[in-house]
Amino acid sequence: MKYSSIPSAQAIVYHCKVKGINNIVISPGSRNAPLIIGFTGDPFFSCFSIVDERCAAFYALGIAQQQRGPVALVCTSGSALLNYFPAVAEAFYSDIPLVVISADRPLYKLDIGDGQTIRQEGVFGKHVGYSAQLKQDVTHATSVYKHHFTEWSEEKEFLERDQIKVQEHNDKELNTAINIAIKVKLPVHINVPFEEPLYRAIEFPSISPKVVPVEADTVENALDLREFAQIWNNCDRKMILIGSYPPNLMEQSLLDQLANDASVLVFTETTSNMHHPNFFPSIDSILAPIEKSGEGEMESLALRPQLLLTFGGMVVSKKIKAFLRHNKPDHHWHIDPKKAYDTYFCLSHHFEMAPNTFFSKFLVGVKPVESDYRRYWSAVKLRYETRRNSYLSEIPFSDMRAYHLVLNGIPEAYQLQLANSSTVRYSQLFDLHPSLSVFCNRGTSGIDGSISTAIGASVYHKTPTLLLTGDLSFFYDSNSLWNSAIRSDFRIIVVNNQGGGIFRILPGQEETEIFDTFFEAKHGLDAHHLCRMYNLEYSVASDAETLKIALANFYMKSRIPKLLEIKTPRLLNHKTLLGYFDCLS
Amino acid sequence: MKYSSIPSAQAIVYHCKVKGINNIVISPGSRNAPLIIGFTGDPFFSCFSIVDERCAAFYALGIAQQQRGPVALVCTSGSALLNYFPAVAEAFYSDIPLVVISADRPLYKLDIGDGQTIRQEGVFGKHVGYSAQLKQDVTHATSVYKHHFTEWSEEKEFLERDQIKVQEHNDKELNTAINIAIKVKLPVHINVPFEEPLYRAIEFPSISPKVVPVEADTVENALDLREFAQIWNNCDRKMILIGSYPPNLMEQSLLDQLANDASVLVFTETTSNMHHPNFFPSIDSILAPIEKSGEGEMESLALRPQLLLTFGGMVVSKKIKAFLRHNKPDHHWHIDPKKAYDTYFCLSHHFEMAPNTFFSKFLVGVKPVESDYRRYWSAVKLRYETRRNSYLSEIPFSDMRAYHLVLNGIPEAYQLQLANSSTVRYSQLFDLHPSLSVFCNRGTSGIDGSISTAIGASVYHKTPTLLLTGDLSFFYDSNSLWNSAIRSDFRIIVVNNQGGGIFRILPGQEETEIFDTFFEAKHGLDAHHLCRMYNLEYSVASDAETLKIALANFYMKSRIPKLLEIKTPRLLNHKTLLGYFDCLS
Repeated sequence: MKYSSIPSAQAIVYHCKVKGINNIVISPGSRNAPLIIGFTGDPFFSCFSIVDERCAAFYALGIAQQQRGPVALVCTSGSALLNYFPAVAEAFYSDIPLVVISADRPLYKLDIGDGQTIRQEGVFGKHVGYSAQLKQDVTHATSVYKHHFTEWSEEKEFLERDQIKVQEHNDKELNTAINIAIKVKLPVHINVPFEEPLYRAIEFPSISPKVVPVEADTVENALDLREFAQIWNNCDRKMILIGSYPPNLMEQSLLDQLANDASVLVFTETTSNMHHPNFFPSIDSILAPIEKSGEGEMESLALRPQLLLTFGGMVVSKKIKAFLRHNKPDHHWHIDPKKAYDTYFCLSHHFEMAPNTFFSKFLVGVKPVESDYRRYWSAVKLRYETRRNSYLSEIPFSDMRAYHLVLNGIPEAYQLQLANSSTVRYSQLFDLHPSLSVFCNRGTSGIDGSISTAIGASVYHKTPTLLLTGDLSFFYDSNSLWNSAIRSDFRIIVVNNQGGGIFRILPGQEETEIFDTFFEAKHGLDAHHLCRMYNLEYSVASDAETLKIALANFYMKSRIPKLLEIKTPRLLNHKTLLGYFDCLS
Repeated sequence: MKYSSIPSAQAIVYHCKVKGINNIVISPGSRNAPLIIGFTGDPFFSCFSIVDERCAAFYALGIAQQQRGPVALVCTSGSALLNYFPAVAEAFYSDIPLVVISADRPLYKLDIGDGQTIRQEGVFGKHVGYSAQLKQDVTHATSVYKHHFTEWSEEKEFLERDQIKVQEHNDKELNTAINIAIKVKLPVHINVPFEEPLYRAIEFPSISPKVVPVEADTVENALDLREFAQIWNNCDRKMILIGSYPPNLMEQSLLDQLANDASVLVFTETTSNMHHPNFFPSIDSILAPIEKSGEGEMESLALRPQLLLTFGGMVVSKKIKAFLRHNKPDHHWHIDPKKAYDTYFCLSHHFEMAPNTFFSKFLVGVKPVESDYRRYWSAVKLRYETRRNSYLSEIPFSDMRAYHLVLNGIPEAYQLQLANSSTVRYSQLFDLHPSLSVFCNRGTSGIDGSISTAIGASVYHKTPTLLLTGDLSFFYDSNSLWNSAIRSDFRIIVVNNQGGGIFRILPGQEETEIFDTFFEAKHGLDAHHLCRMYNLEYSVASDAETLKIALANFYMKSRIPKLLEIKTPRLLNHKTLLGYFDCLS
């Protein structure tokens, strides 16, 4: 065991350990040496080294997403910290606890022209649950200076009193920050100034920090659900819409009960990880024909729920958001222990509890209601499924065809990480195998950080991970591959349509150079060279036949991770997608 | 000419045009479509498309650094904006005017679960000169809705009054933000909410924004410099220390006068772009022996100035900072129109004017003072120059040798862009040719963004540009090469020592796996594959002979840009550097 000679560094490491934060993602630096010494000096911690802080933060996010607990990030002073921000914002909106620890210069060296020095305190503003500013240790407290004071002196006593105050302040800040991360599931920022010397290590800790345990969950108040059950029982058109949700947290028996209620439609997003044959997993396939036929039509009336019940995180489908905003339900209830967004501008109640808790209590009091709500829409679903099958067999090779083949070919029980933009949207058009665990960074829905997140998410996952991504998202985060510990069963599929093809769907876009350059960001890159550089096995497909062959081998065991690049026709893709929605009408 | 149908988008484009901001770096997106339509629709603007916002912002910084005027950045909503932050902080501390324009969702769509939505307003906190929050246009003001109101109605009048208020607010915000960028040379942030539809273009503008011109510089007050001249004349040891400064802004005759004063030592940093045979361009070579001999020694006393006069930006040399903090001058004056950092904790006066103005007034009143200050240190300089030459001829191939050969071989009049950390520090050890223009991002001294900055800086430069970088900095910013418009005369030299070798210089670092992984971040990457991917001509050298041969061809005209990778021995480099400082004592 090794400890930094600097008490505040010891305190940080100690607090993390006591609170069970054992995954530490470190970016190299000098100012953060006391933290590196402390974290790497204790075998309790699993430390990971990632140079590019932007990737490091998303990697930590991926670990935290899967561990469902906090992961710490450690960086040096200056702009290093700012590179964490995209992942911090994603964590903030996805309720993922990142504990960002940034080393800083001593206060008196800020804004006086020292290198790698910015205004770090509170730099993440409104996108963290707490910003802790630690105080610098009184110099004599470090082991280096202790020998100056071998005997009693007034100065020594004075300094020791000051140091006790510093430690009290730091313990308080650390307790607050880390407990918020754990309890409220938010990213927090701990900024800590270190004076030189930074590299001294000692064998035994020089302080004993005071730790305040995380408050236990208060017992959920015995909310009377009868009133709500009555509303429920009076509605014959109820819609349940499930946003992103981790797998295996809902009891299947509860889901079954909902699935078998004739007055209930359960709309599930791909990232909801909820499955039942009676559920509606391709929301956009239901909604596209209604959207086309305009507002106020028969079909809108038939779909509009009287009661909307939502849970889970962000919803991907723009069509369902637009539909529900235009066809507001009489009641919108949201279930979440922490927050309820008024996504449809008609939120009427927030049940502050876990969905599992809610339903296990609520469903006791509900009665079957006569309704043909589900039957009617099940028939529509059957119709679009048939049309989709025949459409898919007719269309030329394209994004749509490629996504269909890929999504059908994923081995059971895999973790599937989806990049944003076209990837997650195409994935919503198909029914995924219930054994897959599906994730996507929908907090900010950025194209940044998807590979890093997926690699982080794979670290401890008991099954292999596939990242499915478009080309812009892939190249954006190419530095993620600068990571020496990618599991050999990690898989990446890049659907490369040579630009932001999704923008071609927009109405009225002509074929102009301005469009190609500034909206689509057309490029001629492929992933081949990056695979050579970072030692990934590379294969490529550019039609359905070669894709099927490539997929047949792709998931086989290998010595190194693999990447499959699928090249699709840039100018055709949007036509097959729009054609799909047309064929449903 | 094309205009967005959205008035606030028109206003932004108009304000930029009137204020002469003609370089616009755009990252693709949907929410920012009104801005893309406006900027690309007017041939006044030179628009650049860069997908990775982190690179885009440093690229814009590079253009602004060279143009010495504002460059605009345009991005979509969400985490895109956060990727600008490292460059924004660099711009803030380097006094470079970036005008960041971020498209946002309408206010009522924040924090209700919409995609790509964060809390954008004021997100750069204390690292911008101004944060402007524009108001959303009243819906009817866009051309799409105008036809609803063909005749007079009370509602129309009411809405029009509201729209006038919006436009007044937006004009005020835009005038303030852009004028601060231009006048105070700071990055500013303009956040603008847009409602759909985003893609409508019109032929003629629908508004006429009110523009407030940038205030002319107030005439510099006729400060009486006589009092200061008297202090100057009473000191026989005066040191002038010049930090980073753009080339060709100081009159050489003024520099000559300072150079020839026997009581004046002029210490120039590599990034100062100031040259004279009497100047001292390798500060660390002077200071290393003094540092070694400890404080309070004869040599410290001989070097300590009575008066320190500084100008220019950040100072790279840690040794001079430490020296002056321990051997404080009696007076420290700083010359800068805007700010004066108290870098040495003894600042006594800030002359708020340009150095050229100051010296042309000040030097009139100064008298020659008898002193052997310069003569003494010139002898020391001569001695270290001799030792350096013989040392360089003895040492094995290493970073030090490679930097020496590279820096000696740069063609005259090139622009030299230096990456941070070891690159800029090694460069400070040698005398560069006076015809070179030298730049380095010393605002935050980050290893992020050096290639992007250099590529941006090359866009309009009248001579070719060389970027000299270490490996970590190079791979960190590898996405910078995802840029279709890199000039064919652009050159990159990567000194690849397989990690952050500079950390090896630290005392007491043992050869442990923890050191290799978490401090040095050891890797086995080379730049070869990235060159293939992004179409750069690649060559490699790993000893002095192959390096000399490679350099002989490297600057010759080529169809595509070139990269030269120099591989140096990871475990030897720090020894040759420390040996150099030893040999000076």
